[in-house]
Amino acid sequence: MISIGVLGGSGYTGKKLLQFCTKHPHVKEITIYGNTTAGKTIADVFPELDSIVKNSVIKSVDNISLEHDLYFAALPHGQALNYVPNLISAGKKVIDLGGDYRLDDPLVYQEWYKIEHTSPELLSEKIYGLADFSKVNYSTHNLIANPGCFPTATLLPLLPVVKYFNQDILSISTIAYSGTSGAGKSPKSNMLMSEMYGNARAYNVNNHRHQPEIKQELAKAGLNKPFSFTTHLLPVAVGIYATTSVHLEKPISMEGIKNAFAKTYNNAAFIRLRETPPDLTWTVGTNFCDIFYSVKEKSLIIASTIDNLVKGASGQAVQNMNKMFGWDEHTGLL
Amino acid sequence: MISIGVLGGSGYTGKKLLQFCTKHPHVKEITIYGNTTAGKTIADVFPELDSIVKNSVIKSVDNISLEHDLYFAALPHGQALNYVPNLISAGKKVIDLGGDYRLDDPLVYQEWYKIEHTSPELLSEKIYGLADFSKVNYSTHNLIANPGCFPTATLLPLLPVVKYFNQDILSISTIAYSGTSGAGKSPKSNMLMSEMYGNARAYNVNNHRHQPEIKQELAKAGLNKPFSFTTHLLPVAVGIYATTSVHLEKPISMEGIKNAFAKTYNNAAFIRLRETPPDLTWTVGTNFCDIFYSVKEKSLIIASTIDNLVKGASGQAVQNMNKMFGWDEHTGLL
Amino acid sequence: MISIGVLGGSGYTGKKLLQFCTKHPHVKEITIYGNTTAGKTIADVFPELDSIVKNSVIKSVDNISLEHDLYFAALPHGQALNYVPNLISAGKKVIDLGGDYRLDDPLVYQEWYKIEHTSPELLSEKIYGLADFSKVNYSTHNLIANPGCFPTATLLPLLPVVKYFNQDILSISTIAYSGTSGAGKSPKSNMLMSEMYGNARAYNVNNHRHQPEIKQELAKAGLNKPFSFTTHLLPVAVGIYATTSVHLEKPISMEGIKNAFAKTYNNAAFIRLRETPPDLTWTVGTNFCDIFYSVKEKSLIIASTIDNLVKGASGQAVQNMNKMFGWDEHTGLL
Amino acid sequence: MISIGVLGGSGYTGKKLLQFCTKHPHVKEITIYGNTTAGKTIADVFPELDSIVKNSVIKSVDNISLEHDLYFAALPHGQALNYVPNLISAGKKVIDLGGDYRLDDPLVYQEWYKIEHTSPELLSEKIYGLADFSKVNYSTHNLIANPGCFPTATLLPLLPVVKYFNQDILSISTIAYSGTSGAGKSPKSNMLMSEMYGNARAYNVNNHRHQPEIKQELAKAGLNKPFSFTTHLLPVAVGIYATTSVHLEKPISMEGIKNAFAKTYNNAAFIRLRETPPDLTWTVGTNFCDIFYSVKEKSLIIASTIDNLVKGASGQAVQNMNKMFGWDEHTGLL
Repeated sequence: MISIGVLGGSGYTGKKLLQFCTKHPHVKEITIYGNTTAGKTIADVFPELDSIVKNSVIKSVDNISLEHDLYFAALPHGQALNYVPNLISAGKKVIDLGGDYRLDDPLVYQEWYKIEHTSPELLSEKIYGLADFSKVNYSTHNLIANPGCFPTATLLPLLPVVKYFNQDILSISTIAYSGTSGAGKSPKSNMLMSEMYGNARAYNVNNHRHQPEIKQELAKAGLNKPFSFTTHLLPVAVGIYATTSVHLEKPISMEGIKNAFAKTYNNAAFIRLRETPPDLTWTVGTNFCDIFYSVKEKSLIIASTIDNLVKGASGQAVQNMNKMFGWDEHTGLL
Repeated sequence: MISIGVLGGSGYTGKKLLQFCTKHPHVKEITIYGNTTAGKTIADVFPELDSIVKNSVIKSVDNISLEHDLYFAALPHGQALNYVPNLISAGKKVIDLGGDYRLDDPLVYQEWYKIEHTSPELLSEKIYGLADFSKVNYSTHNLIANPGCFPTATLLPLLPVVKYFNQDILSISTIAYSGTSGAGKSPKSNMLMSEMYGNARAYNVNNHRHQPEIKQELAKAGLNKPFSFTTHLLPVAVGIYATTSVHLEKPISMEGIKNAFAKTYNNAAFIRLRETPPDLTWTVGTNFCDIFYSVKEKSLIIASTIDNLVKGASGQAVQNMNKMFGWDEHTGLL
Repeated sequence: MISIGVLGGSGYTGKKLLQFCTKHPHVKEITIYGNTTAGKTIADVFPELDSIVKNSVIKSVDNISLEHDLYFAALPHGQALNYVPNLISAGKKVIDLGGDYRLDDPLVYQEWYKIEHTSPELLSEKIYGLADFSKVNYSTHNLIANPGCFPTATLLPLLPVVKYFNQDILSISTIAYSGTSGAGKSPKSNMLMSEMYGNARAYNVNNHRHQPEIKQELAKAGLNKPFSFTTHLLPVAVGIYATTSVHLEKPISMEGIKNAFAKTYNNAAFIRLRETPPDLTWTVGTNFCDIFYSVKEKSLIIASTIDNLVKGASGQAVQNMNKMFGWDEHTGLL
Repeated sequence: MISIGVLGGSGYTGKKLLQFCTKHPHVKEITIYGNTTAGKTIADVFPELDSIVKNSVIKSVDNISLEHDLYFAALPHGQALNYVPNLISAGKKVIDLGGDYRLDDPLVYQEWYKIEHTSPELLSEKIYGLADFSKVNYSTHNLIANPGCFPTATLLPLLPVVKYFNQDILSISTIAYSGTSGAGKSPKSNMLMSEMYGNARAYNVNNHRHQPEIKQELAKAGLNKPFSFTTHLLPVAVGIYATTSVHLEKPISMEGIKNAFAKTYNNAAFIRLRETPPDLTWTVGTNFCDIFYSVKEKSLIIASTIDNLVKGASGQAVQNMNKMFGWDEHTGLL
C-alpha cells in the first residue's frame, strides 16, 4: 500500500487520477496539492465525486510533503520543472503527466514550449512511458514522462509499422481529432458549448507541440520518411480518433502487418486489435487503445482510438505506476 | 420563371431543394415525385416545412409529367438510370444529385456501384458540375452530374494544388469527416442517437465510392501521384470537414499556393479562402466552401469545410441550375 | 427603405439581426455600434458572415448617429437605459431586445435587475412586443420592448388558455429548457463544451428574471392562479422547449381549447398549431412558435418550441419592425 | 459467490448488468439468455466489452438452466410473464427490470400494457424495489420488480415530500427528460442521430406507462392531490433530468423539507442531497440519485437526476441484488 501526492489535480486529468487511485487496491491515500484550489475541498472542485472519492482539503503546492511514495504531476507545462527535480533528489518516484520531460533534447523543448529547460539532466534519466509499447525495466527509474494524448493515440498503432516496414514507407500523414476536454477547463469563448456544438475545427496546423514528441519516438523506431500530423477538435467532450494514411513504396500484405502487430503487442495489457474500424465510444472511459488497419495496394490506413483523459493521461499514468511498482498492469484499471 | 420536377425528394437533400427552390425568384413551381411517399403531402413528410414551403401532394415517380423545364433526381444510386435517359431524350434539362452519372467510365461505375450502366452514352455528354471550379459552358449541356459531398469538399481545395504543383507532390492523403445526414434517413441501429452521440467512426476504409470520383477529377487536373481518401462519421447531423495532407518533394511558398488559389477561384461564387482553420459551423446552412492552407517545409496541410446537404448536394445543384439557365450563381442561395 | 442602427450587436442576437436585415427588402443599410468591438469589422467578429453580410467597421456606442430610422438595442441589461431615452426624445423608433423596458413597474424592475430605472416614464409608453399576440396599434408607438426568449415561448401558448379558461385553472407550472446560446458568448467554465456536452442543468430556480415578465402578462390576461416557472440548460446551442402543466378544477374539452387557440391566433403570422408534440428542430432557424396541447381529464399539457435567437430575440424584433412600419409581418423572415 | 442468469441482456441495460456483475466480488459467473442473439458471443453484440467482460456464447431463452441463484429479466414488456413464474416456482430469486411486475393491479397493467397479466398472484408477492426508499425486508421475497427509470427519478425526491406534507400540497407536476438510450437499440427513423441531434421532443403526453407506476407509489405514501407527469427526449444518450413543481396550499420552510429528506434518506446508500441544482453529468455512469429542492413562498421546485441505465435500471437492480443477499448495498457499484 502506497501513499500518493498529486501536484495540480484540479483539472480533468486530476479528476480521473482521483477516481482510479481511489479504487486502486494498492493505494492507501491520495493527497492533492493545488495552486488556486488550495484550501478548497475535493467536493468543492468536483461535486460529481461526492460520496465516491474520500473528501479532503486540497493542500498548497508550496508545501509539498515528502512523505508520499509516488507523485503525479498534472500541471500546466513549465510548472513541473519547479517541483520534479527536488522530488527526484529526495529519492521519490514521479510520473509527470505534462510535457516537461517528454522530449529528450532540451533545445527542442525550448523551441516548442518557449521555456528554458532547467533540469535537462533528467531528460535522459526518464522513461518515456508509452506503457503498452515500452520494454524498458521500470523498476530502475524514478521518473516517468507520461506521453501526450495525441502521441499515445498515434504512436501505439504506428510504431509497429515503422519498426518492421520503414523501408517500404513513402510517407505518413496522421489526422487526429480530440474531444474538447483536451483543451482543459479554463474558460475560452471559442470552447463554449454554443460555439463547439455541431462544430469541428483544425488547430495548431503544422505547429502542434505533440509533433516533435511523436517524431522523436518514430525516429527511435527507425523512421526516416516524411511524417505530418494535424490536430482537430471533435464536438464531444472526451476521446481521440487518429487516422493515419501510410503511402507505401510497394504493397505489404495484411498478413505481414498482422504479424508486426502480434509481435509488438502480444502481451500488451491495453491494446485491442479490431477487424472493423472502431467506434470512438468503445474506448471512452477505458484505458484501451483500439487499433484497426487496412491495406489496399500501396495504401495502408490505420485507425486508432483512445480516451484522451484515461489512456491519453491518467489511465496510462496509473498503468505506469503499476509497472513501476511491479503490480499487474491492469490493477485498478478494469 | 421555370417549373421544376424533383424525382425522389423525401430525404434530406429533397428537403433542402424544396427550401431553396421555394425562395428562388426564377422558380414558379416545384413538383415532387416519390416512391413510398407518393400520395402523402409535403407537410406529412417534412412537418418542419409547414407554412414555409407550399404544401402539395407528392406524385408517383411512375407518372412523371414532361411539363417541367428542369428535373432534379435525388434518388438512391441505380434508380436515376430508369428516368434520366427518357428525360434527356425529351429534350429536358436534368441535374442528378446521385452517383449514377458522375463517373466517366461505365466499367468503373459497375465496379464500384455493382450495377451495369444502361445509359453509358450519357456519361460523356454530362457535365461534372463542380460549380465553382468548372469552366465548361453549361448552356450547351442538358445533363449535369452533381458531385458527391466528399468529392466537393476534397476537390475544391485540391484541384488548384494539383493543377499548378503536381510535379512537386510526393503524396496526398485526405481524411474527411461527415455529419450523419450523409447516411440518409433510413433507420439503422448503428446510426441511432444512442450509438452516435459522443462517437466517431471510420467507415468504408480503402473502399468508398467517392474515391474513384475524386481520382477521376484529380487525374484530369494532371495528378499522377499517390492519393488516399478515408471517410468518417462526425457526431453531428450536418457538415463535412476534410483535411488533406500533401507531402511535397520540395517546398512550395505560401505565396505560390496563394496565387494558385487566386487564379483558380478569382471569380468563384462560393469559395471563401480563410487565414485561420475554419470552424465547420461557418459553412453549415450555406453554399460556401471554406478553404485554409498552411505550408511548412515540405508539408502542405489543407482544411476545407462544406455543408454536406447544401454545397455537397442541393445548394450546389441550385448553383448548377443557375449556371444552366444563365442566372447569377448566387440566385436563391444567399 | 430604411436605415438601421444596432446598439451592441456583437453577440448571438446581433448576428441574427444582421442576417435578417441584410435580406430584408425594406432595409437599405445597417450600422453596428459596439463597445469592446468598436473599430473591428463585422467579419472580424463574425467570420461566418463573410460574403453574406456586407462587411463594415463597427462604430462606437459613444457616437451614435441620429440619421437612422430605427434602432435595435441588443445590450446587456441596464445599458439600454443610457441610450434609449435620447433616441426616443429625438423622435426615433426603438426596439429594445434587452430586459430594460419589458416590465411595467419600475420597482419590480429594480427588484429583479438590481438597478434603478432612470426612464420609468417610457415603461408605460412602450409596447410589449409579443408580436403574434399583441393587438395594439404599433404605428402610434416609438418604443417596443421585445419580449424575452422564455416569456415568448411560455406566453404564446399560455395566454389563450388563461384568457378563456382562467376560472377553470387550479395551477400552472412551466418547465423550460434553453440551448446555451441564451447565456451569451462570454466565457464561463460551466458553459464550456467539456462541461455541457451530455449535460443538462436547472438554474435560477424560483429566481429567474423572466418570471415577473411572464406573470405580468398573464395577469393582464386575467390570471389569478398559482404559476411557477423553472429554467434549464439544454445541451444544444439553440432552441427553447417549454412544457406547461395546467391542473384544472374541472375538465375542459379539446374542442374548447382548440377554439381558444383559433380565436387568438387565427391571423397570427408565426404560430403553428401541431397535432403531435413538436420536435425542437422544427423551429430552429425560423421565426415560428410551434404549439401542441393535450387534455386528459383535469390535466392540460402544452408543449411549445421556438428558436431562442430568432423568435426569442432577433426574428421577433424584425417582425415587430414590420408591424411598426406597416409591412407584411413575414417580410424578410421566411 | 453466486451464479447469475440474465434473460434478454443484449440491449443497453444488459450491457450495464454485465459490466457491474463482472466487477462484483460476490458474482462468480454470469450467463446471458437471448432471443435473436442466441448463438452469438458477447463480444459480437458488445465489441466495447472485449477484454473487459469474459466473452461467452449467448444461450437461448428457450433453454434456461435452473442452476443459477439469481435471474435478471431484461426483456421487452410482456415477455417476462413467460419465464418468471417458472423460476419463482423453482424457488429461484428474480429481479425483473421490465414493467411486467411493477403495478399491483393486473387490470391497471392490462389497461396500460394492452396485455392480460398471466401471473397476477405474483404482483402482491413482489417487492417494488425502489432500493434507497424501500424499508421492506428483502430476504423474505424472491421477486423484485425493479422500478422504471422515470419512476425512480421522480419518486425518490417526491416520496418524502408527499409522506410529510401531503396535506399542504395543492398540485404536483413532473416534467422529465431522458437520454435516447431509454428508447432502446431497435432502429427507428425518428431516433437517428440526424433527427435527434440538436433536438428535443415531448412524447406520450398524458399517456406514459410510467405514470400509473408513479401514481401507485405516491398513493401508497398518501398522495390524494392532482399529479401530472410528462416525458421528453433529451438530445443525449444517457441520463434523466426530472423537475417537479409542487404548488403548496401554504408555505413550508426549507428546514421542514430538509428534515423530511433527512428522515427518509438518512442511511440511503445512493442519495446525494445537493445545495445547487445538479448537473446531469454528475450522476451519469453512477448509481446515485442527486436531489435539489428550493421553496419560495408557495412554490416548491425539486430537481433530480439519475443515469437511466444505471440507477434507472441495472445499477438499481444490482443494488436490489445486494439487498436480497444481505450484502452492503454499495458492493460492486462504486
